[in-house]
Amino acid sequence: MSTLTHPQSAGSAALAKRIAIADTDIHHAIRSNDDLLPYLSAVNRERLTRFGGTGAAFQWFNNGGVQGHRTDLPESAVNGAAVCDVACLIRDHLDRYGVDYGLLTGLSVYGASVWPDVDYGSALCSAFNDYTLEHWLAKDSRLRFAMAICTQDPAGAVKEIERLGSHPQIVGVLMPTGAPRPFGNRFYDPIYAACEAHGLVPTLHLGTEGLATVGAPTAAGWPSYYVESRLARPGVYQAHLASFIFQGTFEKFPRLRVAFLECGIGWLPSFLWQMDSDWKAVRYQTPWVKKLPSEYVQEHVRFNSQPLVEPPSPAVLDQMLEWIHADRTLMFGSDFPHFDFDEPTQTFKNIDEGLRRRIFHDNAAAIFNLRKGA
Amino acid sequence: MSTLTHPQSAGSAALAKRIAIADTDIHHAIRSNDDLLPYLSAVNRERLTRFGGTGAAFQWFNNGGVQGHRTDLPESAVNGAAVCDVACLIRDHLDRYGVDYGLLTGLSVYGASVWPDVDYGSALCSAFNDYTLEHWLAKDSRLRFAMAICTQDPAGAVKEIERLGSHPQIVGVLMPTGAPRPFGNRFYDPIYAACEAHGLVPTLHLGTEGLATVGAPTAAGWPSYYVESRLARPGVYQAHLASFIFQGTFEKFPRLRVAFLECGIGWLPSFLWQMDSDWKAVRYQTPWVKKLPSEYVQEHVRFNSQPLVEPPSPAVLDQMLEWIHADRTLMFGSDFPHFDFDEPTQTFKNIDEGLRRRIFHDNAAAIFNLRKGA
Repeated sequence: MSTLTHPQSAGSAALAKRIAIADTDIHHAIRSNDDLLPYLSAVNRERLTRFGGTGAAFQWFNNGGVQGHRTDLPESAVNGAAVCDVACLIRDHLDRYGVDYGLLTGLSVYGASVWPDVDYGSALCSAFNDYTLEHWLAKDSRLRFAMAICTQDPAGAVKEIERLGSHPQIVGVLMPTGAPRPFGNRFYDPIYAACEAHGLVPTLHLGTEGLATVGAPTAAGWPSYYVESRLARPGVYQAHLASFIFQGTFEKFPRLRVAFLECGIGWLPSFLWQMDSDWKAVRYQTPWVKKLPSEYVQEHVRFNSQPLVEPPSPAVLDQMLEWIHADRTLMFGSDFPHFDFDEPTQTFKNIDEGLRRRIFHDNAAAIFNLRKGA
Repeated sequence: MSTLTHPQSAGSAALAKRIAIADTDIHHAIRSNDDLLPYLSAVNRERLTRFGGTGAAFQWFNNGGVQGHRTDLPESAVNGAAVCDVACLIRDHLDRYGVDYGLLTGLSVYGASVWPDVDYGSALCSAFNDYTLEHWLAKDSRLRFAMAICTQDPAGAVKEIERLGSHPQIVGVLMPTGAPRPFGNRFYDPIYAACEAHGLVPTLHLGTEGLATVGAPTAAGWPSYYVESRLARPGVYQAHLASFIFQGTFEKFPRLRVAFLECGIGWLPSFLWQMDSDWKAVRYQTPWVKKLPSEYVQEHVRFNSQPLVEPPSPAVLDQMLEWIHADRTLMFGSDFPHFDFDEPTQTFKNIDEGLRRRIFHDNAAAIFNLRKGA
């Protein structure tokens, strides 16, 4: 229909607005490195202009659409950069679908977490956070933000959390999933202590697999094609999830809630079963893990739905939602403005209305402090 | 019951023998490096005795039982080596359960595939193959063998396949799954051409993840505990499976059949759905992939059942078997003599008899040339 290809012609009417929507995965970006310059020290300004290096993402990143972006958005491929700015986000997404809360998850400085020089990484994260505050968060009160941190610089990350973590629109910290050590490793504990203290959600998102100081994106080395890299994503999320559980992160930080974005849920039911079986078999080796892994997941971990799993029938989807306790664990995420965007009106259309409300809003609201500062 | 803890007291009666059994995963091993010496050149004999280095497996390997082995077997922990010899295999497994065909999958020289010096790797594989012919295959006509090759030395592997691939009990080549490049990479094509020519099945088995020239076992680096390493296994199998499909291996080698051992099937249904969806979305990038990934899988890939998935109800297991077309794709494997052994009499007890026959024998017989030389 014409409103799909020319969304602006629909005015500001929310399409099919029936329930509150919290979209947990909206990618905002800089248009070029110049956007970061006002927020950097002289030495880092020089470094960025002379040598580059925001290093957005891994080698096959979003190899669909235009540089990974939807081709129907007017700003796509502006200056070859395929950036959708805040006006585009408001008009073509928030207003169009009646999104009540939109979590900005960035992308531009994911690479900062995996470079050898973590001071430079942390400086770029700070600059990106300041840029986001000024050019995005200040423009629309519906926006929330999982702030950038350099995951491999826990001390720097804690400083950044202390600097900005109380901002009313900052509700999480973004942790790109390609990493030199899994996120349950005690190396990261200072980050989780700071997140717990500020009520922030460590928010995992793919994007640095196989990049810089991070090894290959699979235990079988580097795949050749984008499609293979997509298919390798559940593996990295599984490694982090097993790490959180078996390193005892949730015993150490009982109020911590963690979000896993853009990894879908197809892999989750059997992984929960396997974690539970394996724990039963060898739990004497990790005695600090005090209950079934799936119980920790229900209490502490939330997943978003994108990319939407496509099982052979709607009945199977219902079953999968039950297996993962979607009424507590699942959140909606659109991945706007990427080419494999899940449209809110087309997602979970045929499931129970109460469950839809939880997935589209309540579960996200329960972990991300969406009304913080309201 | 007493026959379980003292199997020898049951005599040679096959427990609950009703259908033909082909066990696709039986780990045989050397007792010590000395077993390989008669089959090595002088220089490699010296190397092995003075410097060691069969490097069985990765850092957390089978950290259950006694060195990963069942504790109820009489030979467990002999000389601290936890080896079950051929007499033990015959008595406590083949005779006990009435196994008609047992595929030896080794383990002792998996490490040979991932060391920097591939000539030494190939020499150790040859020695292990000769040792297996003399001390295992010659002792029982029910035994078959997925011979050792150094996967990172395709030329050496092809030579070894030409040397031994026609032996009536050799029906596959063993490819340990931790690898510097995924197995669909064209680097391995000479191996597949040789396998196709000799009717041998490339047989994937975990065991070298994170070892030697192979990077971390996950895209998130090294986990700390054995249980995490177990949970990382599906990820590496997924990388190889996506690689076979999207590199076009089965278009290049239309008669090739590949076996995936000891990775279970829990992860498979959603991975098939995801491969099909992703192929639909970006198939223009890999135009040599001519049909749905799941169709290639049905035709070319076989999985064994161990470790047995434990879904919430038997009905879900039935469903999973249907989703993966188990009537064509699934085989039984016990993982004898490891601690997480799946007992034939306790596996798939309650499924349709026709399907049991296919899983326990017919599907394996259809790809491994079990009656070769008969």
